[in-house]
Amino acid sequence: MPVPDPVLYPPFNTIRLSHVELSVADIGASRRFYCDILGLQVTGESDDRVYFRGMEERGHHCLVLKGSPGPSADLIAFKTYDEEDLDRAERYFRDLGHRVDWPDRPFQGRTLATTDNHGVPIEFYHRMDRLPPIHQHYHLYRGVRPLRIDHFNMFSPNVDQSVAFYSNIGFRVTEYTEDEETGALWAAWIHRKGSVHDLAFTNGIGPRMHHIAFWVPTPMCIIDLLDLLASTGNIACIERGPGRHGISNALFLYVLDPDGHRIEFYCSDYQTVDPDHEPIRWDLKDPQRQTLWGAPAPRSWFEDGSAFTGIDARAPDLVAEPIIAHDR
Amino acid sequence: MPVPDPVLYPPFNTIRLSHVELSVADIGASRRFYCDILGLQVTGESDDRVYFRGMEERGHHCLVLKGSPGPSADLIAFKTYDEEDLDRAERYFRDLGHRVDWPDRPFQGRTLATTDNHGVPIEFYHRMDRLPPIHQHYHLYRGVRPLRIDHFNMFSPNVDQSVAFYSNIGFRVTEYTEDEETGALWAAWIHRKGSVHDLAFTNGIGPRMHHIAFWVPTPMCIIDLLDLLASTGNIACIERGPGRHGISNALFLYVLDPDGHRIEFYCSDYQTVDPDHEPIRWDLKDPQRQTLWGAPAPRSWFEDGSAFTGIDARAPDLVAEPIIAHDR
Amino acid sequence: MPVPDPVLYPPFNTIRLSHVELSVADIGASRRFYCDILGLQVTGESDDRVYFRGMEERGHHCLVLKGSPGPSADLIAFKTYDEEDLDRAERYFRDLGHRVDWPDRPFQGRTLATTDNHGVPIEFYHRMDRLPPIHQHYHLYRGVRPLRIDHFNMFSPNVDQSVAFYSNIGFRVTEYTEDEETGALWAAWIHRKGSVHDLAFTNGIGPRMHHIAFWVPTPMCIIDLLDLLASTGNIACIERGPGRHGISNALFLYVLDPDGHRIEFYCSDYQTVDPDHEPIRWDLKDPQRQTLWGAPAPRSWFEDGSAFTGIDARAPDLVAEPIIAHDR
Amino acid sequence: MPVPDPVLYPPFNTIRLSHVELSVADIGASRRFYCDILGLQVTGESDDRVYFRGMEERGHHCLVLKGSPGPSADLIAFKTYDEEDLDRAERYFRDLGHRVDWPDRPFQGRTLATTDNHGVPIEFYHRMDRLPPIHQHYHLYRGVRPLRIDHFNMFSPNVDQSVAFYSNIGFRVTEYTEDEETGALWAAWIHRKGSVHDLAFTNGIGPRMHHIAFWVPTPMCIIDLLDLLASTGNIACIERGPGRHGISNALFLYVLDPDGHRIEFYCSDYQTVDPDHEPIRWDLKDPQRQTLWGAPAPRSWFEDGSAFTGIDARAPDLVAEPIIAHDR
Repeated sequence: MPVPDPVLYPPFNTIRLSHVELSVADIGASRRFYCDILGLQVTGESDDRVYFRGMEERGHHCLVLKGSPGPSADLIAFKTYDEEDLDRAERYFRDLGHRVDWPDRPFQGRTLATTDNHGVPIEFYHRMDRLPPIHQHYHLYRGVRPLRIDHFNMFSPNVDQSVAFYSNIGFRVTEYTEDEETGALWAAWIHRKGSVHDLAFTNGIGPRMHHIAFWVPTPMCIIDLLDLLASTGNIACIERGPGRHGISNALFLYVLDPDGHRIEFYCSDYQTVDPDHEPIRWDLKDPQRQTLWGAPAPRSWFEDGSAFTGIDARAPDLVAEPIIAHDR
Repeated sequence: MPVPDPVLYPPFNTIRLSHVELSVADIGASRRFYCDILGLQVTGESDDRVYFRGMEERGHHCLVLKGSPGPSADLIAFKTYDEEDLDRAERYFRDLGHRVDWPDRPFQGRTLATTDNHGVPIEFYHRMDRLPPIHQHYHLYRGVRPLRIDHFNMFSPNVDQSVAFYSNIGFRVTEYTEDEETGALWAAWIHRKGSVHDLAFTNGIGPRMHHIAFWVPTPMCIIDLLDLLASTGNIACIERGPGRHGISNALFLYVLDPDGHRIEFYCSDYQTVDPDHEPIRWDLKDPQRQTLWGAPAPRSWFEDGSAFTGIDARAPDLVAEPIIAHDR
Repeated sequence: MPVPDPVLYPPFNTIRLSHVELSVADIGASRRFYCDILGLQVTGESDDRVYFRGMEERGHHCLVLKGSPGPSADLIAFKTYDEEDLDRAERYFRDLGHRVDWPDRPFQGRTLATTDNHGVPIEFYHRMDRLPPIHQHYHLYRGVRPLRIDHFNMFSPNVDQSVAFYSNIGFRVTEYTEDEETGALWAAWIHRKGSVHDLAFTNGIGPRMHHIAFWVPTPMCIIDLLDLLASTGNIACIERGPGRHGISNALFLYVLDPDGHRIEFYCSDYQTVDPDHEPIRWDLKDPQRQTLWGAPAPRSWFEDGSAFTGIDARAPDLVAEPIIAHDR
Repeated sequence: MPVPDPVLYPPFNTIRLSHVELSVADIGASRRFYCDILGLQVTGESDDRVYFRGMEERGHHCLVLKGSPGPSADLIAFKTYDEEDLDRAERYFRDLGHRVDWPDRPFQGRTLATTDNHGVPIEFYHRMDRLPPIHQHYHLYRGVRPLRIDHFNMFSPNVDQSVAFYSNIGFRVTEYTEDEETGALWAAWIHRKGSVHDLAFTNGIGPRMHHIAFWVPTPMCIIDLLDLLASTGNIACIERGPGRHGISNALFLYVLDPDGHRIEFYCSDYQTVDPDHEPIRWDLKDPQRQTLWGAPAPRSWFEDGSAFTGIDARAPDLVAEPIIAHDR
C-alpha cells in the first residue's frame, strides 16, 4: 500500500502559526515599543510577561514578551485543527524520538511542547482564550495598524533538512531559492494557512530566529510607521526598507526592537490554498528575489538573528556566500 | 457513535470557489469591458466562450463568458482538495437525490456537475490547466488590477436552507444577519478558503446571482477604477460605492457589466482559518452592517440580480422588508 | 490710458484665504469634534473662543470657534502680501462705499474689517502670530490629518456679481458652471494662492456659508476618517462622499459639525499659478462636474448652509433648478 | 529712500519654473523611457527634439529632449507674469553685465536667454502654446502619473552666491542647510510658485544639474513606478528611494534616465505662499534632513550630475565633506 504524501496528508493537522515568546532585557521599554509605537494591543500582563495581539485577532496572544537578563527567542507556537491533533502530534514526535512535554500555558488549553529537527522549541495547542473583536474599532488603531501575526523566519544550518522536517507535518513550499550548482536549498517559504508562508528558512548560523512578521492593511501603513518612527526618535531601529520582496511580492519594512529582535511589517502577498500550487524557484544570483526593486539588504540583515534560549547555533552546511552585494 | 460535525469534518473537501460562467448578449462588448476596462487577462477563446483570470491566479480561468441570446448565470464552480473528493462528492449528491453528471469542460480535468438545494448549477473539479504566473508582471496590470476571484453572492429564497446545505459540505459561517424576532437568517457569509467568504446568501427572490467579487490589492485601485470608468464614458455602470462594508470590513465598489451582471471589487477583509472562528452576528436594523460609513445602498442593489439559466426564481419565505432606507 | 485688468493688477495684494470664525452652540462639543475626531491642533483658548490650526500651518489659526446661543458664520478672513496692502484695501473699500473698521483681533496684527458685495463680513490682515512648525511631528497627527485650510464655499444670490466683486480685487476664475441658455454663472471657483480656489460661489439662497475645506495629504486619510467616524458613533455627520469632484479633480468628503456647519476634506486638485491659466467651463447639465464618478449629492447639500451673523439671506436671482437628480 | 527688498519686490516677476532641455545620446531610447515607462505625454516632435508635458499641464512642454552626441543639460526656463517682465528682465541682466539674447523657441512666444551667476543658461518667456487639458483623462495615465514639473536641483560651487543671485530676482528660501562653524550655506531650497521650491542648490562641483523633479499625486504612484521598473528590466536605473526627505517632507524616488540624467518623483510637500514664511534651518550633521527615515543616500547621489552644455564646472568653495555615511 502506498504511503500517502505527508505534505498533502499530514500525520496531524496544523492550521497556522500562532505566537512567539521573546525574552527581553527591559520589559517596560519593550512594552512601550510594541504597544505605543507599533500599535499592538496588550491583552494580558503577569509578573514577568506581557501578552499582545493584532487588531483583527480573536486569540488572546500572538506575541509574548518575557523579562529576562538578556534577549533570546523562547519558543514558536502553532494552532491545530482540533484537540485530537495534539495527541496525534504527541505520538508523532515521540515516535520520532523528540522530547514531548505538556507545559501549563496561561490563556491556552492543552499545549504540547517539543522541538524541531534543529532543536527549536515548538509548541502546539488547539484552544486559546478568545477575546471580543476589536477589528473595526478604528479609534484603537495606532502605529502600523498591525492586523495579525503573519510568519516566522529562521536561520537554518541546513534548509533542506528544515524543509523536510516541516513538510513531513504538512507544510507546503510556496517559493524557494536554490543553489544552481549543488541543487541545495538556500532558502524556503512554507505554509499551512493559505498565504505565502507561516515559516521561512534561510541558510545561516542556526537555528536562530531571523524575524517575526505582522500583517498590515496597506503600504501606506508602512509609510505611516516610518514617519512615526522618524518623529519619535526611533530611526536607529529601521534596518531595511521600505521595499517589495520579489519572493512573496510583499511590501516590507524591517525594524529592530529594543533588544535587536527583528520585526517585519508585511502586506500584499497572495493566496496559496490550492494543494497543487506550484512553488516558485528563484536563482540565488537574482537580486530581485530579495528586493524586487533591486536595493540590496544591509549586511546585518544577513548576519544578525535572535538565539533560541538554551540552543547552540552552528555554522550552516552550505558555506557559499550570497552573491548579493550589500551596498552600492 | 456520534456523527461528526459536517462543518468541521465534511463528506468531501472543497478548497475554494473557482469560477463562474455568465451568459452575455454581446460577447465582444463584454470582453472589452472585462479585459480593457476592468483589467482581467484573457486566457482562452473559443467560438462562443472567452476565458479570463486575475493577475495572481495560476488556474486557467475564474470567469467564463458565453455568447447567448440574453444574460444569465450558467454555473458556479469549486475546486476540491484531490481527485477522490470528486468521487466522494458524486456519492454524496447521488445519495441526496440530486442529479449528477460529468460534463466535458475545456481546460479542466474531471468535472462533477450537480445542483444545490435551490437548483443552482454547481460544479466541482480538482484539476485545471495551470498557467505561468503573471503576478509580478506589473506592466500587464490595468484597470482595477484584479488579483483573483474572491466570492459569489446569491439571492436565496430561504437563507437558512442555503446555509444548511453548504454547511453540510463543510462551509463555515463567518458573519450573518438575523431577524431578531423570528431568529431566521436574513443573510450569511460562508467560507472554505480562510477569508470572510467563498459564498454569501441574501434573502430575496431566488435563487439568483447577486454579484461576483474580485480581490484587488488596495483601496487606491478602486479609486483608480472609478476614475477610469469616469473618463471612458462608463459612469452609468457604477451602482454603489466606494464604501466599506460593516460585514467583512471590505472596501467595496459595485459595477454592472454590459448585461447588468453585478461585479464587486473588494479588499481588506480578514483571515478566518481558525476552525473555532466565532461568527459575527449583525442586527438587521443596523445600517453599518451594509455600509460601515452609513450610506444606504440603492434600491436596485436589493432587487436586481442575474437569473440562473433555466432556473425559476421564487419569492423568499421571509417577507419582511429590509429596514434600511434607500435614500436620504 | 488703459485701465489695468484688476484680475491681473489688483488694487491690493491678497495672498490667500486665512481663517473663518464660526459660532457654535456647545463649544466643548465642537472642540472635541474638531480636535479629537478631525485632528486639528488647538492653539489658543479664551473665555468664549477656541483657535485651531492644521498640521503644516505656521499662522496661529485657520479656524476660530465662538460660543454662542446658536450657529452662524461670523467672518471669513484673508492674508495680504504686506502691511501697505491693508491701507490700499481700506481706501479701496471706502471708495466703494463699504463700511471699514479696524477691530482688535487676538493673535493678529492690524486687521481691516469690511463686507463683500452681498454683505458677507470679510477681514484682511498681514501679520498673524507665527507658531513653531509641527508639520513633521507625526506622532501628533490624528483624525483626517488636516494639513491646512484650503477654501471657503458660499451660496450666493447672484454668482455673476460675487465673481465680479472678487475679480476686482484680483481673484481669478479657474472653473465655472454656466447656464447654457442665459449665460449666467451658476457657480464659480476663484483663487489667489495658486490652487483651484480660495473661494467658490454656488447659486442659492445667500449669502450663506456652504462649507469650509481642509487640505489632507492623500485619499487614504479620507478613508481613515470615515472609519474613525464609523467607530466613534459619528456616521450621522457624514453627508456626502467619498467621491471625486469633476470640478477641481479633488477627492472629497463632506461632514457636518455638531452645529451643522459643513466641512470638506479635500485633496488632489492642481496648480493654477499661471496668469493665463484658462478657466474650465462646465455645463450645468453635466453630472460629472459635481461627482466625476456620477453619484449625485443629497438634497441637503444643495439646500443647507450656515447663515452669516446678522446678514439676511435672500433668494437667488437665478431660479432654475439644478438638473441633477438627487437620488437614484 | 530705502531700497525695497528684492526678495519681496523683485525687479521682474517670475511665476514659476517652466521647463528644461536635456541633450541625450539616443533620442528614441529616451523617448521610450520618458513616455512609455514614466508616463509623460509627447506633445511635439521635430528632427532633433521631442517635447513632453505632465498630465495636468496646459503649457506645451516641461521637458525637451535633444538628440546629441552625448548627454548634457542645455538650459532651464522660467515663465514670467507678463510680457513686460521680459523687457524688465532684459534690462536687469544687461545692467548686470550678463549676455542677453532673444532666441526663437518653437511653441513659445518671445524668449529671453541669459545666464545665472555661475553661467547656467537660463531662459524666460511669458507665452507658450497652451494645449487642451488631459488632466482627468485617466485612461491616458500611465507609469508614475507625472502631473507637472516641480523643480530643478543643481550643484553649485558656491551656494551663498547662487542664493544671492536668485534672491535678487525674487526667489525666497524655504529650507536650508548651514555649516555650523562657518555659517556658509551647504544647500538651499528656493521658490516662486508657492511650494517648497522651484530651484534648489547643493554644494558641489558645479554648476551642474543634479536632478529634475516631477510632481506625482500620491506615494502609491511611486510604488507603482518601482513595480513597473522592476517588471520591465529597469531596476538598474533606480538610484535612491523610496524615502521621505526631511527637507520638504516629500516622498521621493530618484531614477537615472538612459543618459544618467537624474529624475525625481516627488509628492507631499507643503504650501509656502506666505511672504513671511520662515525658512527652516537644518544642521549639516542631521541625517534626517536628507532622509527623514534615516537611510543614507548612495555615494553617486552626492557626486554625479549633468554638465551644462559648454559650461565648465569647478570645485566648490566649501570643501568640507558631508558627514552623512553613505552606507551602513
